[in-house]
Amino acid sequence: MIVDVHTHFVPERLPVMADRLGGDKWPVTKCICGKANHKNVMISGKNFRTITDQCWSPQRRLSDMNNESVSIQVLSPMPELLSYWFKAEDTLDFSRYINSQLSEFIDSNPGRFLGLGMLPLQDPELAAKEIKNIKNEFGLKGVEVGTNINGRSIGDPFFTPFFAEAEAEGITIYIHPLHPLGNDRIIGPSSLSALIGFPAETALAAASLITGGLLEKFPKLKIILSHGGGNFSTLLPRLNHGWETMDEMKQICPKRPSEYAKKMYYDTLVYDVKTLKYLTDTIGSRQLMIGSDYPFIIREKFPGHWLEELGISPEMTDAIKYQNALQLFEINNLNFI
Amino acid sequence: MIVDVHTHFVPERLPVMADRLGGDKWPVTKCICGKANHKNVMISGKNFRTITDQCWSPQRRLSDMNNESVSIQVLSPMPELLSYWFKAEDTLDFSRYINSQLSEFIDSNPGRFLGLGMLPLQDPELAAKEIKNIKNEFGLKGVEVGTNINGRSIGDPFFTPFFAEAEAEGITIYIHPLHPLGNDRIIGPSSLSALIGFPAETALAAASLITGGLLEKFPKLKIILSHGGGNFSTLLPRLNHGWETMDEMKQICPKRPSEYAKKMYYDTLVYDVKTLKYLTDTIGSRQLMIGSDYPFIIREKFPGHWLEELGISPEMTDAIKYQNALQLFEINNLNFI
Repeated sequence: MIVDVHTHFVPERLPVMADRLGGDKWPVTKCICGKANHKNVMISGKNFRTITDQCWSPQRRLSDMNNESVSIQVLSPMPELLSYWFKAEDTLDFSRYINSQLSEFIDSNPGRFLGLGMLPLQDPELAAKEIKNIKNEFGLKGVEVGTNINGRSIGDPFFTPFFAEAEAEGITIYIHPLHPLGNDRIIGPSSLSALIGFPAETALAAASLITGGLLEKFPKLKIILSHGGGNFSTLLPRLNHGWETMDEMKQICPKRPSEYAKKMYYDTLVYDVKTLKYLTDTIGSRQLMIGSDYPFIIREKFPGHWLEELGISPEMTDAIKYQNALQLFEINNLNFI
Repeated sequence: MIVDVHTHFVPERLPVMADRLGGDKWPVTKCICGKANHKNVMISGKNFRTITDQCWSPQRRLSDMNNESVSIQVLSPMPELLSYWFKAEDTLDFSRYINSQLSEFIDSNPGRFLGLGMLPLQDPELAAKEIKNIKNEFGLKGVEVGTNINGRSIGDPFFTPFFAEAEAEGITIYIHPLHPLGNDRIIGPSSLSALIGFPAETALAAASLITGGLLEKFPKLKIILSHGGGNFSTLLPRLNHGWETMDEMKQICPKRPSEYAKKMYYDTLVYDVKTLKYLTDTIGSRQLMIGSDYPFIIREKFPGHWLEELGISPEMTDAIKYQNALQLFEINNLNFI
């Protein structure tokens, strides 16, 4: 049994938002002549990404899942849909459309799909108010949020109202890189941005949750870092060392940074058994979950296939494969699937 | 025997540059009333960093080295001295002063000290021309360079003239983080910039050397990445995966990224035995060298003390402790120390 917490969703049709502020910057789906089951997601008149029915068809997804022995997929929006760069009220409308489409998708087979929705996080109060709808109206397990919201790291105390409500409601927060920093430091084609920028971006986001004091203030937050936390695992020892040697670090976080790090969850999407072993040794098997980035080009096929090489116990392997995720999402009913 | 390749130097007096373009932006040393053996390095009228005679006194340094069982220190300028943000001709003058002071320091005990100088890399042609002086006039083993030069990653083909000459002359290039990106993503005090920004910055610099094609073009380059390459080790598997799945990656670097990664050297300054073990497993013991960041606050005391816990052979331990460094710096005479 495998629960894959890192998979993305795009509805077959995106809502018409062109009459709102932002105009053609809102993403729209466009058919591709002669290519059934393919669509382009257009932003500002350009093709942002060609997607397939893997994004919106439950049948297609189930067929891939069965081929790759995945029992449950947790779906979150393709990050570019998060739309933090529009008017918050418009993003709320857009979010409700996406959340409702996602909800419908999941209802098609609630034993095999779980969902993480989206919120207008550029307005943390507005986002906080919508959390109850995420749970009750849409039946989602939590939300996907960007590593940064319009350039502001997710650990900024600005987002406190959202985190307070997320903790109170017990929803899961899935952190995914978005518009990564460092594009001006990357030499080569623009596709390198996701390859090189995403891990750096995720590490900075994780660090901000520690150094901004949010993990200290809200110890019950349920946070999953995508891409194995990116480069956070190699950053952590330096952060610990700084905490030991610099008084001002102790003032902002009373506990050793690795203590906070071990309260977060990480997916296994690190592309290499040595790196996964290192992550397991550093963070612990109880904090890891399978993640694949399905259905995008960089995805890891047969997610979890490295686990057998880790040299950990069958119990810990099962923890990573499905138990940690089922526990986090509070799925106790074993007849669920 | 330990060779520590990551230690920094500031001369007791910095040259008077205030009459040049940049004025008080040039760093100057200032005595601290009542604190012998301490100085402030002033930049734009503010104290950039308080330093001690560990920076400029061979006797003080030897005493610390003997206490911590370090046989040889390789000295490079405190990175803020690199001064790429001034007129190149002025930086050349400043560089020659630093290089000559460093040369004098090393001559005081050539069996215990080696030096890496600096160059006006904002003008790669001018920097290239000065490389012969680095070797012959100043007797230095190479140069320290920033991870970025005024925001341009070190792997940008713009720097080709410098790399071509560095390879031809066989000097070592020591890459150190400088003015790291991501300060606007860090939540907390400004000292976090070095803690959190440096590893991300070093990773991006290392990646740029691969994706910019410089390591392919100049296969004999002798490059050391400071801080264990920063976050480069956790970035590398994703870069490899991208190379395997995306054709445009293969066009810019014909070999797998990890092949280029294994041609560079890395210091051991990762602050944790698990991380050092991971680096050793990923890159190989033949590419590692001891590094401490002496004499700054974040330095690792008793550098190399993790090595015994790595579970590698005595031969490989010796390779990391001194052999790799002596070989890179072409020190064959065993009577050297």
